[in-house]
Amino acid sequence: MTAAERNRQVILVSRPDGIPQAEHFRVAEAPRPSPGPGQVLVRNEWLSVEPAMRGWVSAVANYAEPVAIGQVMRSFAVGQVVESDDPRFPRGTAVVGMFGWQEWAAVDGAAIQRSVEETDLPLSVALGVLGINGVTAHHGLLAIGQPRRGDTVVVSTAAGAVGSCVGQIAKIHGCRTVGIAGGETKRRLCLERFGYDVALDYKAPDFGARLADACASGVDVYFDNTAGAISDAVLPHLAVGARIVVCGTASVASWSPPPLGPRVERHLLVKRARMQGFVIFDHRDEEPAARAELARWVREGRLQYLEDVLDGIEQAPGAIAGLYRGENLGKRLIRLR
Amino acid sequence: MTAAERNRQVILVSRPDGIPQAEHFRVAEAPRPSPGPGQVLVRNEWLSVEPAMRGWVSAVANYAEPVAIGQVMRSFAVGQVVESDDPRFPRGTAVVGMFGWQEWAAVDGAAIQRSVEETDLPLSVALGVLGINGVTAHHGLLAIGQPRRGDTVVVSTAAGAVGSCVGQIAKIHGCRTVGIAGGETKRRLCLERFGYDVALDYKAPDFGARLADACASGVDVYFDNTAGAISDAVLPHLAVGARIVVCGTASVASWSPPPLGPRVERHLLVKRARMQGFVIFDHRDEEPAARAELARWVREGRLQYLEDVLDGIEQAPGAIAGLYRGENLGKRLIRLR
Repeated sequence: MTAAERNRQVILVSRPDGIPQAEHFRVAEAPRPSPGPGQVLVRNEWLSVEPAMRGWVSAVANYAEPVAIGQVMRSFAVGQVVESDDPRFPRGTAVVGMFGWQEWAAVDGAAIQRSVEETDLPLSVALGVLGINGVTAHHGLLAIGQPRRGDTVVVSTAAGAVGSCVGQIAKIHGCRTVGIAGGETKRRLCLERFGYDVALDYKAPDFGARLADACASGVDVYFDNTAGAISDAVLPHLAVGARIVVCGTASVASWSPPPLGPRVERHLLVKRARMQGFVIFDHRDEEPAARAELARWVREGRLQYLEDVLDGIEQAPGAIAGLYRGENLGKRLIRLR
Repeated sequence: MTAAERNRQVILVSRPDGIPQAEHFRVAEAPRPSPGPGQVLVRNEWLSVEPAMRGWVSAVANYAEPVAIGQVMRSFAVGQVVESDDPRFPRGTAVVGMFGWQEWAAVDGAAIQRSVEETDLPLSVALGVLGINGVTAHHGLLAIGQPRRGDTVVVSTAAGAVGSCVGQIAKIHGCRTVGIAGGETKRRLCLERFGYDVALDYKAPDFGARLADACASGVDVYFDNTAGAISDAVLPHLAVGARIVVCGTASVASWSPPPLGPRVERHLLVKRARMQGFVIFDHRDEEPAARAELARWVREGRLQYLEDVLDGIEQAPGAIAGLYRGENLGKRLIRLR
């Protein structure tokens, strides 16, 4: 096959027990698909890499059917419509959807999440700050965390694709922000790029003491992307009426069985606190309004983002494990062209 | 001193590390107090015994200042006004308040929670089903748990003073109720007296399997009075959108340091669930309406209660530890006359 005829794809070949590694995938070649009646052929330009992909390939109870062995890895992607039998998405439209880790996707119009309207912004932001990461931060912080002006908002993975957005939205809403990240580079990014009032390196030996200082007046909102030891350090500092937004569990390698940690009930009881999980796919109808607000903040320069770009689909198999090792700075993306 | 001149009191003599035992208290005699200007002299008839007393004597961060060493043990009590310099509470009025574990209390009117209006009902219910236990069950289930008709509501310490009330209010609201209690006697009480649809003995060898059967359609509300192993067994059965009401932690002997348990974050995330603590003293303004509704249900025979009466103030020192051993059936009270 010539390059124009082939469709390189990343296939799930075995089911990981914990975090997906490169060996759980294989890059394969299939013929470039032909769209059927009513379908659209998309040439992917950017593929997304998410911490949530760990759940998408897990056999453990989850919010969606796991990706089947032998199937193309499920993924958000953004690309151009090259052929179309759906008048809503004419040839040349940039579209976002669950097109998978592959170069080409022939999909029904129903599988397309949206046409990209922010044509003044780089196409890749449709997967990050204007995609799942941005709307996750927006809904999680504002609808679940319910911050009030003057609140102290603590964010774990504070320099990450979701966390950096949470910290900035909290600042826009008049909160004091405390970011927790791994290593001095990310800590400085939190301060210099994402405007956190305080940033802490959880790997530093005095992390506990610095966290206690930063949270002396109590933590009103804890946006939790990690669970694990970072959460265990934050929970003793909750303010009365605190809200804990459970968004991700990046620090936990495996949930079968769930690892042990200090019990949380007494904190929740004594502080009249609330700990709540959410799955952003439940809130599709809120997305357009959230995205419009996020895009406005990006254009106004009030919402900064970083991208961690890997070139070529052959980078995809190892990309999730790298996220969990914390090697990325910002939203991790695979660039195809 | 003659009996009419003395005031027997239960004094906190040392601070327990976990659950208060008889040796942490001493029964002492003081002279019967004389009320000062604006004060009221109350002759206590019933003293309350609460699981929450563990927290009231704990030095660990809590929602109230701990009872000081050498002071009368803090307690709800109900009694009669014998002398009064406060026109709101004339002689002969039955009153409820934090009068302490003692026979007589000279208190300011501000220390009186209320006059008992339900004079058609036994006085002791002012401490139980119409007191802290009833209003705790009412607020916790309805305001925090937010049950909907047809929901499955699981209650731990299901036959206890709070739990039995929760189960019955859930039934009144059209829910299916699953009670968890320790031992066959309490299990049968749940079914025969408190109307649970299913009742389970957590000490039974097949508890896990029976719980899985009872919760096959998912737990919509878990009213948690225990934390510990019972909660660990319930959480894997949460329904999507579940609410966990953190009301008490009866099964945990000490919180310094917090014991380890299976992490909860993944359950909360995948099931979009909420886990929330509350302290009933924050909700004083809701009490009159809740109490009126509870009293109506008692009069209509829709809200059953059990009392576990210990006779004489000398029973008080060991009464909290007995609660935590589960030896009581229903609301534990000390009867003074």
